[in-house]
Amino acid sequence: MGIAEKAKKAKSASILLSAVKTDTKNTALAKIAEALKSKSAELIAANQKDLRLAEKSKLASPLLKRLKFDEGKIADVCAGIETLIKLDDPVGKTLSATELDEGLNLYKVSCPIGVIGVVFESRPDALVQISTLCLKSGNAVLLKGGSEAANTNKILAKVIAEATCQRSAGSGQRSEGIPDGWIQLLETRQDVAEMLKMDEDIDLVIPRGSNEFVRYIMNHTNIPVLGHAEGICHVYVDGAADIDMAVKIAVDSKCQYVAVCNATETLLVDSKIAKEFLPKVKAAFDAKNVELRGCKKTRSIIKVKPATEKDWSTEYLDYILSLKVVDGIDEAIEHINHYGSHHTDAIVTQDKATAEKFLDLVDSAGVFWNCSTRFADGYRYGLGAEVGISTTKIHSRGPVGLEGLLIYKWKLLGSGQIVADYAEGKKKFTHKKLI
Amino acid sequence: MGIAEKAKKAKSASILLSAVKTDTKNTALAKIAEALKSKSAELIAANQKDLRLAEKSKLASPLLKRLKFDEGKIADVCAGIETLIKLDDPVGKTLSATELDEGLNLYKVSCPIGVIGVVFESRPDALVQISTLCLKSGNAVLLKGGSEAANTNKILAKVIAEATCQRSAGSGQRSEGIPDGWIQLLETRQDVAEMLKMDEDIDLVIPRGSNEFVRYIMNHTNIPVLGHAEGICHVYVDGAADIDMAVKIAVDSKCQYVAVCNATETLLVDSKIAKEFLPKVKAAFDAKNVELRGCKKTRSIIKVKPATEKDWSTEYLDYILSLKVVDGIDEAIEHINHYGSHHTDAIVTQDKATAEKFLDLVDSAGVFWNCSTRFADGYRYGLGAEVGISTTKIHSRGPVGLEGLLIYKWKLLGSGQIVADYAEGKKKFTHKKLI
Repeated sequence: MGIAEKAKKAKSASILLSAVKTDTKNTALAKIAEALKSKSAELIAANQKDLRLAEKSKLASPLLKRLKFDEGKIADVCAGIETLIKLDDPVGKTLSATELDEGLNLYKVSCPIGVIGVVFESRPDALVQISTLCLKSGNAVLLKGGSEAANTNKILAKVIAEATCQRSAGSGQRSEGIPDGWIQLLETRQDVAEMLKMDEDIDLVIPRGSNEFVRYIMNHTNIPVLGHAEGICHVYVDGAADIDMAVKIAVDSKCQYVAVCNATETLLVDSKIAKEFLPKVKAAFDAKNVELRGCKKTRSIIKVKPATEKDWSTEYLDYILSLKVVDGIDEAIEHINHYGSHHTDAIVTQDKATAEKFLDLVDSAGVFWNCSTRFADGYRYGLGAEVGISTTKIHSRGPVGLEGLLIYKWKLLGSGQIVADYAEGKKKFTHKKLI
Repeated sequence: MGIAEKAKKAKSASILLSAVKTDTKNTALAKIAEALKSKSAELIAANQKDLRLAEKSKLASPLLKRLKFDEGKIADVCAGIETLIKLDDPVGKTLSATELDEGLNLYKVSCPIGVIGVVFESRPDALVQISTLCLKSGNAVLLKGGSEAANTNKILAKVIAEATCQRSAGSGQRSEGIPDGWIQLLETRQDVAEMLKMDEDIDLVIPRGSNEFVRYIMNHTNIPVLGHAEGICHVYVDGAADIDMAVKIAVDSKCQYVAVCNATETLLVDSKIAKEFLPKVKAAFDAKNVELRGCKKTRSIIKVKPATEKDWSTEYLDYILSLKVVDGIDEAIEHINHYGSHHTDAIVTQDKATAEKFLDLVDSAGVFWNCSTRFADGYRYGLGAEVGISTTKIHSRGPVGLEGLLIYKWKLLGSGQIVADYAEGKKKFTHKKLI
């Protein structure tokens, strides 16, 4: 099947899926978990094939670990599905209601976006998480995973599609009431390029992966894109900071997991506190083998490599940190808004007014006070699973969970009203808020 | 000033504007209304100049009417500003709050989007409405109006900028606390083309105007676009319709104002009711001099011109209507989802189950039951003024009022928490919903 045809199938399915009842969706989710367990041997065999190919092509060991899909991972994704089943159905919620006139009521009702195209990295468990989030939120989905996981993803998508679209014996009807075609797997980068042209049938693209790849997608489609290219996060240590707390937060923000978008790349230090703070934080980072690169003022206090202009806009994703001494909160805010990626930035201070200024004026999806930037994550935020993290300024910002997969429609229920009566002054709007 | 510089100025202003207090914004809005009144002579003189040029270039008379900016229009926009002042400030609302752990609270807080680029048609009053909506919602704005209104817009933008950025005598401080540069006027189409490249500094583009122009904008920028190219709206007259009501709604949907996006272009008629309904509706449309174009089945019942395939996807914006006989609700839904523009579509029926199916499965921003498509409008919805109507599926759908100019940021307030403690199992998330 060509990509255009897959997109059209997904579009048709999405229309029906938008009106499928909660129970039916939850039953289908349970069937998916069941099928994943009962087909685990087949899934693990396919994954072994991917792992062998990856080893042959000398894939780095952290990537091999992400690629692995074993009994443990299957149990994890099934637990995730159980949690998802328990979540409220986000579709069909009345967000507002207004009486426009007697017998003419307007309802703003949540509904699925339609067809979501998701391009994700090598973890096969991501395929299960994303597709089940889409199903629960009533969206059809086109999926393209990492090519290293091609064999695993192929079986996974097949198992999920079959579990939701089984036909009852004899009847020819789908027993689960989930429309065929709601989940479609893309297999090559060329498929993705084709998908980016389908702005008639695909409503939203969510790319995850390398900066270059996300940027490529953003630059090559008219479909709205939700995601982030870079994560250049900052911690600003204010003059009024608790120094021990600041050291702890700086180290966690940088080192707790360096390869992720919410890890901190630049530490900004108020000149008022630099002499006292910098030697302490250096000792802590030295213990973790972090390479420090400092501005001139930093280097007048501690001995570190020099930072260049380029460092301020570099996402290291590694045990490297740039350090800059700034003259107070205003310079810190300016630096972050200029060089940052509007992802997540933290201030450490005991001064409430300074903190509030930072939280208000730093133009990022996450603005944190006295805690680590590593908290920026759908699970930690309590959103359930996330489909990605968005640094765009519309629709959804920060970690995107179920809610980010929804929009609304306006339902207007009348009893024969026409606009001419209002335009000619025969009738008047009441605009009475009902909800 | 070049466009890049204007965009950068607007970006800087938007950061400060996002934190400006409600009272300050309302005072500034009042000052704008005051200035528009006190400078009315100057404004009207500039508008006279535009009108004379437009007459010379033989602008059509409805366009001349839209271009006119006189005492009456000034009073109207000032009344609009008074209403806007009374509206709640949408910025800084806590949308949700969650305790992640003791002393670690997450708040989802509404905030302005940032810098909005708006391209609008010839009405100078639109400039006032859009810029004041942006000010109230804390957004900076780049405005490009119709070239016919160039002289009027120039003075208008100047009056508004000066009213909000006056300096107090002697102090050198801005008396209103509104950051300089929050409103920028673009003057040429070339300016717009430049603006579309500024994806670093402009967060959202809202184009209004002709289909071709909106489509051009959608195809030439990486900035998110909120708007609609076409409005191909439908009325479906179901077999269970009240025929008199259906005639009334069809006529209003088509004729109440033909030149607008929410006017109906195609009437779908259930075959069960076609023989009875079509002659009646034809008589009503004949009385209004509407040209009817029908499918084969339609023409077997009433004498009208033939409709071609192209008619189903044509936005006439004129006294022309296409007619199609369909076999019930399913064919109607399919036709609308296939040929429509996802703007606004109505069903006329006395059958609740059929209506609900229509409202659920028609994939449009507005789905109406027993009322005219012409109700799709921010004012009629009770949203206050609108900046446009969106047929996209993300962020804002249908009429976009103040709310569509907002997004949120996540504020996380801690007391030294680091992620390592949770990753290592020393601490556990509570995820207690506070709001």
